[in-house]
Order: sequence, then structure tokens, then C-alpha cells
Amino acid sequence: MPTPLPGRLIALEGIDGSGKSTQARILERQPMLTVTAEPGATALGTRLRHLLLDPGLPAVATRTEALLLAADRAQHVAEVVEPALAAGRWVVTDRFSGSSLAYQGYGRGLDLDDLRRLVAWATGGIEPDLNLLVDIPLDVAGRRRAGAAADRLESLGDDFLERVRSGYLALAAADPERWAVIDGTGHPDEVAHLVRAVLAQRLGTPPEPGR
Amino acid sequence: MPTPLPGRLIALEGIDGSGKSTQARILERQPMLTVTAEPGATALGTRLRHLLLDPGLPAVATRTEALLLAADRAQHVAEVVEPALAAGRWVVTDRFSGSSLAYQGYGRGLDLDDLRRLVAWATGGIEPDLNLLVDIPLDVAGRRRAGAAADRLESLGDDFLERVRSGYLALAAADPERWAVIDGTGHPDEVAHLVRAVLAQRLGTPPEPGR
Repeated sequence: MPTPLPGRLIALEGIDGSGKSTQARILERQPMLTVTAEPGATALGTRLRHLLLDPGLPAVATRTEALLLAADRAQHVAEVVEPALAAGRWVVTDRFSGSSLAYQGYGRGLDLDDLRRLVAWATGGIEPDLNLLVDIPLDVAGRRRAGAAADRLESLGDDFLERVRSGYLALAAADPERWAVIDGTGHPDEVAHLVRAVLAQRLGTPPEPGR
Repeated sequence: MPTPLPGRLIALEGIDGSGKSTQARILERQPMLTVTAEPGATALGTRLRHLLLDPGLPAVATRTEALLLAADRAQHVAEVVEPALAAGRWVVTDRFSGSSLAYQGYGRGLDLDDLRRLVAWATGGIEPDLNLLVDIPLDVAGRRRAGAAADRLESLGDDFLERVRSGYLALAAADPERWAVIDGTGHPDEVAHLVRAVLAQRLGTPPEPGR
């Protein structure tokens, strides 16, 4: 088991269009939080993100995709997440291990236990203290995404996204200590209120800036 | 367990400068063999290879490197190796799973059992029928590489390469059914003679072209 680090790790999870990235930007205004995102938080990750989201690339095999996202996460942990947690900071990441389980597991059909082992190895055992699932129905997500150009991962069809959404809900139901579900259909300010309330209830108050 | 495929998989292994790539090119003259190499056998793999060998990139974490090489292998298996084996061909690959164990395990110090699990998952359980280790002392490899510009993986120093070479020899000693060691210090034609002899002894004769 890895040494417990003094900081706290919070992952925002959900399908594209759920509004979780908007929530990440709202949380970014709080100086006591380190806000980051996957894939692409590091220089190497940015190049992997381009590879993964390139609609022009020939079919990427399912396991290749899972391994590239795990590589992005390993680098993210090494460069960003672990140093911040070691310094006692609270880290909010837009996607983390839950995305692998929901997208590559429930969505693509890879075995969940295999993915858990892969992710645990890639992160050196670091997992979120709290996964915050911003849940919305597919039709709402679809309307929000309308007009934005679809990248390779987003152009997967409603059946796929329905499996991902149900997968997220199943992950949350199976592990209520590490997951919380909030309704993402409201105005971003309303959702932000829910996010703050859940964080305060589950984790208390973040450390003062400068700590 | 995966379905056994009708072809045969032969991996050429060894440190850079061992001459294994020269041997791969000699084997390529035989039309009954599919000759390939890692990393970079696929379009995606070529881009990963550039990432991995880029001396200008900031430090790539050890697990990130292992995961990127596993991703390259997963794509290599899906696009090249598995279809050829399914068609009954003999496939010779310049590097495969043994390179992960030797370089990322013995060289970088990652746990060997973790790496074996990672590699087995990436390949869907496909492993070489024969790993052919082209072994040479470090000083010979160094003289052969002199003049060639060192990439990031090649500029790792003699201590690292000594661990990799010893690691290869340990892997071969532990699994003599799946490994053979040949002396790579001779002229390429002499080494090619050894390669052909070991292949014939261990695996018999490749299928006729057109099969």
C-alpha cells in the first residue's frame, strides 16, 4: 500500500456535456484548490490527447486506448497530482480512474477488474478520496454539445454514452463512501452550490492558501 | 486462455548494438516470414515511438514509459501480429514482451510480476513461441553504436545496459523452453547461420509462401 498523502483528491466525473468542466473552472477560483484535468495535463499528456482525440487516426484498438489513457494518468500523477497531495493540497481533477472504468469498462466492454488493476498500477495506488459524478440525462448532454465539433471519443453514439452513464451510476451505487452523485441538469450556479455542499459534507474545509 | 493461433511468433531480443535488427533484415528476405519491429510498427506506434525517443521531452515517468510501450504493443498485436498468426504465418518481431521485462523491469526496476501482467493484458495473452536473445558484451555493443546519435532510451549509461543484458540472460535461463541465446559477436553472416539453426531446431520449417 502506498503511504497516505496529506492532501485530498477529488475527481469530477460524468459524460461530456455534463457540465463537470464548467464546475472545474468554478472551483479553480478558489486558491486553496489545485484544479487539473485528464487527458492532457502534462506536456506528454497533451501529445497523447491529440493522438487519442484525432478523428483522422485509423482505429485505435480498445486496449491501446485504455493503455494510452493510463499512460497519460501515470504522467499526470507523477508530475502534478502526487506532488500537490504530498504538499497537503486539495486536488480537483476533471476525470480520473472512474473515467477508465466507465468509458473503457462499461462503454467499450473491457473487464472491470483488469482495468482496476491497470489503473491502480498506473497511479501507484493513488485513488480519489471522493468521486463526484455530475449526472445528466443523455438528451440534455446532447443539446449542450450540439454545435461543438465531435472528437473521436465524443462521436460514439447514444448507445455507448448510455452504457457509460449507467456505468457511472453503477460505480457510484457500489461504493457510496467514495462516490457522490449530483444532479447536473440545473444552471451552473445551482450545480456549483451542490458541488460545494457535497465537498463540505464529505471532506470538510480545504486548507488555507499558503499551507 | 486465448485460442492458440496457427502461426508462430519469434521475438528477437537484445540490447541496442547487438545486431538483432540486422538479423531481422536478413530474415526479411525469406518470403514465408512476416518481419516487424517494436516500437513503431503501426501509424499510432510511429507517433508513440517519436514521443518515447524524443531526447527533448521532459522526464517521462517510469510507469508512463512502460504503459506507452504496452500501448504500442497492443496496437501492434491488433493490427499486425494477431492477423498474421491467425493466417498461419510465422512472425519475426524485433523486440516484444521480453524487452519490457529486460528494460523496464531489470533496467528501470519495475516489479517483474506487475510487468508480466501488464504485458499479458496488452497482448491479449499472445506470447512468443521463441525469444531469440542475441547476446553481446557491452563494449562490443558500444563500439557498434559509436557514431550513431543516441536517442533517449539509448543514452542510459553502461550500468543501466549491464542490468538489461544480465536481465535478458536471467530471463533466458529461467525459461529455456521459450528462450534461446546466441552469440552476437561474430560477423552478421555467422550470426544469421546461428539464427537459422536455432529456428530450425526449435520450430522446424516455416510454411510455404502463399499458404
